[in-house]
Amino acid sequence: MLYRNLFEPRSVALIGASDDPGKTTGRPLAFLQRTGFRGRIWPVNPRPFVVEGIRSVPSLKGVPEPVDHCFVLLTGAAQRAAIDDCIARAVPVLSILDGGFLEHEEGRAWFAAALSRARTAGTRILGPNSIGVVNNANGLCLTANAAFASAPFAAGRLALLSQSGSIIGSLASRAYDAGIAFSKLVSVGNEADLEFATLGELLCADPATDAILLFLETVRDGPALQRFATAAWTAGKPVLCYLLGRSAVGQRLAASHTGAMLQPSAFIDAMLRELGIVVIDNFEALFESALLFVGRRAPTAPERRPIAVVTTTGGGAAMVVDRLGLAGVAPAAPSVAVRTRLDALPTPVKSGEIVDLTLAGVRPDVVTGALDALISSREHGLVLMVVGSSARHQPEKATSPLIAFTKSPVPLAVLALPEAPAARAALNAAGIAAFRTPEACAAAIQAYMAWCTPRDLAPFRPAPAGVAPKSLDEAAAKELLARIGIATPRRQIFRPGGTGGINNLAFPVVAKVLSSDIAHKTDIGGVALDIADAQALNDALRRIAASVAAKAPAAHVEGYLVEEQATGVCELLVSFSRTRLGSFVSVGAGGIAAELSRDVQLRLAPVDEATAESMLRGLRLFPLLDGYRGRPRADVAAVRQAIVRLSRLAGEAPDVLEAEINPLVVGVEGRGATAVDALIVLAAR
Amino acid sequence: MLYRNLFEPRSVALIGASDDPGKTTGRPLAFLQRTGFRGRIWPVNPRPFVVEGIRSVPSLKGVPEPVDHCFVLLTGAAQRAAIDDCIARAVPVLSILDGGFLEHEEGRAWFAAALSRARTAGTRILGPNSIGVVNNANGLCLTANAAFASAPFAAGRLALLSQSGSIIGSLASRAYDAGIAFSKLVSVGNEADLEFATLGELLCADPATDAILLFLETVRDGPALQRFATAAWTAGKPVLCYLLGRSAVGQRLAASHTGAMLQPSAFIDAMLRELGIVVIDNFEALFESALLFVGRRAPTAPERRPIAVVTTTGGGAAMVVDRLGLAGVAPAAPSVAVRTRLDALPTPVKSGEIVDLTLAGVRPDVVTGALDALISSREHGLVLMVVGSSARHQPEKATSPLIAFTKSPVPLAVLALPEAPAARAALNAAGIAAFRTPEACAAAIQAYMAWCTPRDLAPFRPAPAGVAPKSLDEAAAKELLARIGIATPRRQIFRPGGTGGINNLAFPVVAKVLSSDIAHKTDIGGVALDIADAQALNDALRRIAASVAAKAPAAHVEGYLVEEQATGVCELLVSFSRTRLGSFVSVGAGGIAAELSRDVQLRLAPVDEATAESMLRGLRLFPLLDGYRGRPRADVAAVRQAIVRLSRLAGEAPDVLEAEINPLVVGVEGRGATAVDALIVLAAR
Repeated sequence: MLYRNLFEPRSVALIGASDDPGKTTGRPLAFLQRTGFRGRIWPVNPRPFVVEGIRSVPSLKGVPEPVDHCFVLLTGAAQRAAIDDCIARAVPVLSILDGGFLEHEEGRAWFAAALSRARTAGTRILGPNSIGVVNNANGLCLTANAAFASAPFAAGRLALLSQSGSIIGSLASRAYDAGIAFSKLVSVGNEADLEFATLGELLCADPATDAILLFLETVRDGPALQRFATAAWTAGKPVLCYLLGRSAVGQRLAASHTGAMLQPSAFIDAMLRELGIVVIDNFEALFESALLFVGRRAPTAPERRPIAVVTTTGGGAAMVVDRLGLAGVAPAAPSVAVRTRLDALPTPVKSGEIVDLTLAGVRPDVVTGALDALISSREHGLVLMVVGSSARHQPEKATSPLIAFTKSPVPLAVLALPEAPAARAALNAAGIAAFRTPEACAAAIQAYMAWCTPRDLAPFRPAPAGVAPKSLDEAAAKELLARIGIATPRRQIFRPGGTGGINNLAFPVVAKVLSSDIAHKTDIGGVALDIADAQALNDALRRIAASVAAKAPAAHVEGYLVEEQATGVCELLVSFSRTRLGSFVSVGAGGIAAELSRDVQLRLAPVDEATAESMLRGLRLFPLLDGYRGRPRADVAAVRQAIVRLSRLAGEAPDVLEAEINPLVVGVEGRGATAVDALIVLAAR
Repeated sequence: MLYRNLFEPRSVALIGASDDPGKTTGRPLAFLQRTGFRGRIWPVNPRPFVVEGIRSVPSLKGVPEPVDHCFVLLTGAAQRAAIDDCIARAVPVLSILDGGFLEHEEGRAWFAAALSRARTAGTRILGPNSIGVVNNANGLCLTANAAFASAPFAAGRLALLSQSGSIIGSLASRAYDAGIAFSKLVSVGNEADLEFATLGELLCADPATDAILLFLETVRDGPALQRFATAAWTAGKPVLCYLLGRSAVGQRLAASHTGAMLQPSAFIDAMLRELGIVVIDNFEALFESALLFVGRRAPTAPERRPIAVVTTTGGGAAMVVDRLGLAGVAPAAPSVAVRTRLDALPTPVKSGEIVDLTLAGVRPDVVTGALDALISSREHGLVLMVVGSSARHQPEKATSPLIAFTKSPVPLAVLALPEAPAARAALNAAGIAAFRTPEACAAAIQAYMAWCTPRDLAPFRPAPAGVAPKSLDEAAAKELLARIGIATPRRQIFRPGGTGGINNLAFPVVAKVLSSDIAHKTDIGGVALDIADAQALNDALRRIAASVAAKAPAAHVEGYLVEEQATGVCELLVSFSRTRLGSFVSVGAGGIAAELSRDVQLRLAPVDEATAESMLRGLRLFPLLDGYRGRPRADVAAVRQAIVRLSRLAGEAPDVLEAEINPLVVGVEGRGATAVDALIVLAAR
């Protein structure tokens, strides 16, 4: 029913509609009339008017039938009255354009109450700050976005859900000019009620939609995203996403723009990817690349073969290949068998890492022969064809040999190097992904090669709302780690003022202040290393006590932890975080400079050993674990186990909000990995 | 004269021209006729034909006048005969389309001899693998690039020099469709004689050219590039460059494509930037951004102010700002004074880090008011305006308030979020840089903010050709470093089989094998650290000797170097390289994992202390030197001095090809920086 009321309403009310199509409030009426919306339209305005035979009504009460979908275009007091009225009448879907009331406390409180009444009444809300909904199949151009003034755009098979309003018109117009069209476009605004994942789940069942595009600033509901991703996978509909907020400044903008308390975008990015959603770092590639994915499944590991590149223009192919190379995606030269087929073509072909047909190779039979040799060999995961001047000059001749490969088992991506709109439109119409810029093409191929089957995950258990975080002291944190099977150093606790020597530890030892009030002990002189004997230990404990008293006078000192000093070949940081989206585990460079190295791999928790291994192999520092330049190999198996065990806190210890091991000192092969320092934060009631 | 014969020849000969405009060899004649070339055209072909009144001649001898510029379209034996003929007749400019002869040794030898005769005759050669030359001012469309089949493109004020042939047509067609036009386009091919820098210098004096665009795979002649950059700076003409070959695979492609032994692209990139050339990492931004630079000088340090962003669409601005943020370019919120002016505008403005005019702000008076407040304040180095739907819907209304700022002291960059060709063309025509994609816009702004005045450098002294490299042993290398003022540990050399104790060194010491045959001593067990006393030293020397004998049996062992062990807060790698382009100095993370960290800053050598400081501040690890998290500051002044002194090898020691200090152990402030290991390579006769 939500689907029908949202996308196929029998009647819509435009509350606050104007008869002036130049005004924002006049646009939905003008657009609906122009696109020939098949339902009934009720402009609501106290001032009576008639536009092309449609007469306004003074209020929602004046509408003589139940309304499926109301779009409130008003602001201020009139807006509140209209929203209240819609909820009182239990309108099924209520879209709200203006979100100005969210800027102040009183407005937010009023809206929270309205939302609660809406839930009771069964009214679903789109927005606020929704610029509207478009269904190209039935002329429902229910939007105030001026870009649709040049609509009707053709009906196509991509759906778009956007947290930024004007993006729907921007993408629709760009795609339209590229010969690509949308089935439905929704501006989800601030997602006070309906968020993108709920609508995405609806679209998984939409026979008019082949793929779902997302333009996101944040994810508010991790479990809903998990359900959507699962539904999309089951339905065989690829989901592609452009994600904002990756930089610090972008994150601040997104927070102010969406009004949301945001999770770091690295978490969102990891979550999307592991749920099988394609993350694409290029605006136009979001729609240009859809045809690479439609009707296909993510390649599984044995099928993940390198790309092949065919070109008639060396410099053009080099732009894409260079960009992909920086992202770790490299082309492979064809095998001897394929090269033999290429050498038999009527014009000479240079086949190294790229297959260069050269100027002579614009002959359609040569292009067909080269592509057929590469695609039928199944040696490659994707074939890129870069077309030179002929794409502009002779689009028919340039595209016809490519269109033959529309349903090929290996996807074909095409970049036209000159400006070549006719060639691109012809390819897109035939179901072949054609790109306008080398940047978009490279971003799409990179995304395709990174496309994953969603990982089989237990339902997410996000951090509960409204709990207070409570840190464990280091000794308690290590007890917890030891219980889950992570090695910790042998240790002994000295209470403040207490005496007595070392019982059962071997020198050298380290000594550290023990206080759950102190997160960064090293920074305040709370740690001493390389303690060789009992006398040095006494000296060290005195120095630590003095430094902590001076630099953190407010901290409650529970005692001093004395531990055997661990040595190894490498130090890592392994951490677990339970967020409002779900749980994550990460591994990266450890030590005091961990944050500076920006060498971190992050996944949804829990992970298995294979995933832990792939995390380690994704680190720049991995060679240090792997016998770098003649050094001994580190105990990678022990690191994998530590990652796996920490990640299982996701399901096994729902009260753990954070757990950070820094450093995890990794010994040589067979010598294990030891959590030398640890910080654990619990959710307190 | 070169300029005239190349770009304004009175007569051209097309050797091997066909009368079929569908053939590659038929295109130059067809294009020249269509574009109304004002000089005389001589198609040379043994088979007689007449095309639109122009009659072929059977051979160059048959041309009854001196020819200023010959374009050889042939291959094989006929090509060689034609090239020989042109040189024998001392044709001033000879462009060569096909470079197939470079693929084999015999062809390369033949061409080297031809080139030598050309030098004697005064014939300048463009190519081989040049797809031609275009001068839009006089209809000289002397090219075989099929993209010019849809020419004539309008004459504009940008010149393009490309090492990749088909790029000239790709860029011309893309720019044309964006309302941007070129003065001249040259495919420089393999640059056997005329390379881009020589032509660039010519264009600095061209009154029809405002800016020079480069599409490069490599730089073959560092000193020529230096002369070109200086001339461009003097002429006030910005030079913008897209550089291929940044990835390993891109570098391999460029090498095979250009036939050049390539310098690493990091060297070329550093050289371009320091010579004041703008490096832009986006294909279309190469021409779209030119208007940001034309008529302006690179901002000097005190003028390097943050950018301002004005938008009517939050999501659109966020895409650009997010991308810039990842590149370290952040917008600044306007000051209170400017905000007061913004608050006085007729519609509400949200002015945080971006100035959001919101939907209401599409009023021209609001846009003008906001831009005027920001630009006249001079608080920002550049203003970005992101235009929403109105750019497509009402291009005139959207662009007119922007065009008023054409000659403003602060450059204005505009991004239209929907597809809006009319708005972009209007802005470009008015001299305002308008961008099609958020990626191009961000790349251009990033490049503008990084734009530098060329550094005042001595003429480059590249590495001489044909010298053999010779490594110094570590002791000799340290003597050299000590002579140029870089601190080294106190040391003593033990000869193999020799005896005798330590004279004047304080324990702990380190011991290392001394052999100019061994570059990576640690990797073969050639180093021992933390040697506490004389007995341990003897043991260590024995162990080293045994390990080296086992793992590097062929190395000549000169002895063992015993040194005081240096300690510090950070280890760096500082290196100097003299290449065939010029000399470079770099600094980055040191130690065994230096290569893995990818944290390096590179500059042309020599550098001064200010440049050395900016190199250090550009490192991710800089906080470790700067008192990270309560730790003591490192002796940054000593590091600066070490960088400066090593970099002066560029002028002071022309026989030094390479010098690498790894690690440079940096002590706390006041304790200096010590070269603990060093490798120096000299040019031997």
